[in-house]
Amino acid sequence: VPALIPGLNLVLASQSPRRRELLSLAGFTFTIQPASIPEVPSPDESPSAYVARLATEKAHALNPAPNQVILAADTTVALDSGLLLEKPANQQEAFAMLKALSGRSHSVFTAICLLHNKHHTTHVEHTSVWFAPLSESEIVEYIATGEPYDKAGGYGVQGQASKFIPRIEGCFFNVMGLPIHQVYRLFSEGGLLAKAETPSPAS
Amino acid sequence: VPALIPGLNLVLASQSPRRRELLSLAGFTFTIQPASIPEVPSPDESPSAYVARLATEKAHALNPAPNQVILAADTTVALDSGLLLEKPANQQEAFAMLKALSGRSHSVFTAICLLHNKHHTTHVEHTSVWFAPLSESEIVEYIATGEPYDKAGGYGVQGQASKFIPRIEGCFFNVMGLPIHQVYRLFSEGGLLAKAETPSPAS
Repeated sequence: VPALIPGLNLVLASQSPRRRELLSLAGFTFTIQPASIPEVPSPDESPSAYVARLATEKAHALNPAPNQVILAADTTVALDSGLLLEKPANQQEAFAMLKALSGRSHSVFTAICLLHNKHHTTHVEHTSVWFAPLSESEIVEYIATGEPYDKAGGYGVQGQASKFIPRIEGCFFNVMGLPIHQVYRLFSEGGLLAKAETPSPAS
Repeated sequence: VPALIPGLNLVLASQSPRRRELLSLAGFTFTIQPASIPEVPSPDESPSAYVARLATEKAHALNPAPNQVILAADTTVALDSGLLLEKPANQQEAFAMLKALSGRSHSVFTAICLLHNKHHTTHVEHTSVWFAPLSESEIVEYIATGEPYDKAGGYGVQGQASKFIPRIEGCFFNVMGLPIHQVYRLFSEGGLLAKAETPSPAS
């Protein structure tokens, strides 16, 4: 399994259970230290600039020790109009969001920020997601599952919303909140990955 | 949660743990009755014709009762050349497959077949999947996880191969083995879904 070089400790600056699950599935071990910062878009800030700023602020909120590598992330959902769909606060907001997503594509942006030795790298990943046309009863039934409330855009791609989503273009894991290939690439390009032992493939 | 109309029992004709997980995640209840048929491509059979034939044969192998709805599926991975990559039998085969997938895109085809009342509908879903360039040590390290062996193409998109996959185009769940939106659509168009109770969204 992939690992950081010995002596380095990976810290995930997020309380998202989905990010935790993805980083574990990819084989990494880490501790969790959520960073709490205000999450308010600035006027005229693009979705990608917004998530990049938040991920970077979350990473720097933690003030890491020299042996710590901080991974922070932020995800938002945007309509073509640029309107951001963040976590719905109540049933009405969830209904309006899902109605806005029905029968069309939207964009999911996740920024990841890797901070180590006072140096950080931030990457923004974009995925297009298509929703099938949803009836009002499908939307109401879905909201009743409770899934929308802690998720940007009001849906969980990996839960009961899966049946509404015929197509994506881009990184799937980005839609779940952590573009795991890009995380791996940042570790690798940052020289943070331990060298794998390389037994012969013919052994 | 979505359900078939009362009195109908859904039977999943597959022993794949991933198909079981996806159908459960989408909210359906079902029993499992794997159908065992020979899985051999005919000469000049296209990947999509091949999986369509197998899914249909699996469904018809079960001889369902009138109150049963059978869902069968078959998945294969194909290179642009048309070469099929099925489940690797050993380390050498897994190595050759992952080497062939490295640094390029390939196609995943899953056929689903819904059989009820002696009538069946078969749908084939296609997704393009991109692999990052893999080093030999990454391939060897990945094979050592044991993930390749029970999976078409020798990788699991939802496991430790996630870090190698920057992009897909199409249905993600298709790559996991069950295009759940198309399953839901077949249930819906077949008139098999129970009507949801529709509380007012404003309630």
